[in-house]
Amino acid sequence: MAGSGTLKCLMHEIRIKTGQRIEAKEITRQIANTISGYRNGHIHLFCIHTTCGLTINENADPDVMKDILAAFDRMVPANYPYLHSEGNSDSHIKASLVGHSLIIPVLDGKLALGMWQGIYLMEFDGPRERKVLLSFIK
Amino acid sequence: MAGSGTLKCLMHEIRIKTGQRIEAKEITRQIANTISGYRNGHIHLFCIHTTCGLTINENADPDVMKDILAAFDRMVPANYPYLHSEGNSDSHIKASLVGHSLIIPVLDGKLALGMWQGIYLMEFDGPRERKVLLSFIK
Amino acid sequence: MAGSGTLKCLMHEIRIKTGQRIEAKEITRQIANTISGYRNGHIHLFCIHTTCGLTINENADPDVMKDILAAFDRMVPANYPYLHSEGNSDSHIKASLVGHSLIIPVLDGKLALGMWQGIYLMEFDGPRERKVLLSFIK
Repeated sequence: MAGSGTLKCLMHEIRIKTGQRIEAKEITRQIANTISGYRNGHIHLFCIHTTCGLTINENADPDVMKDILAAFDRMVPANYPYLHSEGNSDSHIKASLVGHSLIIPVLDGKLALGMWQGIYLMEFDGPRERKVLLSFIK
Repeated sequence: MAGSGTLKCLMHEIRIKTGQRIEAKEITRQIANTISGYRNGHIHLFCIHTTCGLTINENADPDVMKDILAAFDRMVPANYPYLHSEGNSDSHIKASLVGHSLIIPVLDGKLALGMWQGIYLMEFDGPRERKVLLSFIK
Repeated sequence: MAGSGTLKCLMHEIRIKTGQRIEAKEITRQIANTISGYRNGHIHLFCIHTTCGLTINENADPDVMKDILAAFDRMVPANYPYLHSEGNSDSHIKASLVGHSLIIPVLDGKLALGMWQGIYLMEFDGPRERKVLLSFIK
């Protein structure tokens, strides 16, 4: 989709398979591999769904993401007399809490993430195959 | 506000009237109409207020947004002995939970939204006339 | 880090000292000073940590930020039998609730913030010295 002869805005569709209803799936390496060749600027990640989201958090101790998912469940329980009848209202609510997109700076060809930061697809209504749009922003 | 002869960064002010204290007002069509003529890149939406926000979620079943607003009210009740004396502390808190801005990719002149995604102004202290800044990012 | 002779993407590292475990530290002036000379476009702020975040909210009455921090504590208590054993799981969770980055339009050299909006580093595990990456986006 790049405009006339420019690489200013190039878009990739990244597919991510999740394995559980609620899951924090790390996608840092997948993203890093996709931006190969891009030097300086930013990437935008955009989750095109309404029951999952994206976040950045610690990827050293896996207990951190477990604690985050459990806390989201306490704040927004799966079982509640919601109006929406598909049984996934909690998933929609959690998606809006965490947000659908991320912008990350790219510096000398590398994601400018902090030492402990990893990128996560936050699955709240899996398992499914999810799509995230990755695009470049100068 | 575009710089010297370029359309790289053009800003629009979008006005949105809300009708209730708490309301998820869909603005997808209004945004789509505003970007007419823009081909590839991203739009940035920025809510210049402190008691409303922006989110993306399902626009098929209106019960989804009702469930989201109700869940926000359970997490952050309107009635609580807050310090801020204007009676809208819950609105400020909810605004920071949902966030003030969105970036959405534009592909071949169309918002690259998923099938079920709509853009919502999340009014937490209406009814008011709200302003959202829309700008273009290559 | 700007690319070949262009100012399209220039990155600054901003250091912010926090003084308490939980604190909303306003950084609006610091950001405004850093962008001096930049005319039109956007800035991206990116917090490279996993136990603090960034948000925009009211900077007129300091009680607003106190209410926000207290509400986050009620939603995500510091004391809870979390799995992560470092005693800061609540900090990680709150960081993902508020988010790690902001994009703010710049118009005629000024942050296009609303009348009541201030930019805050949300410290959830201080006191520490924090780093925020500021970069420019046309």
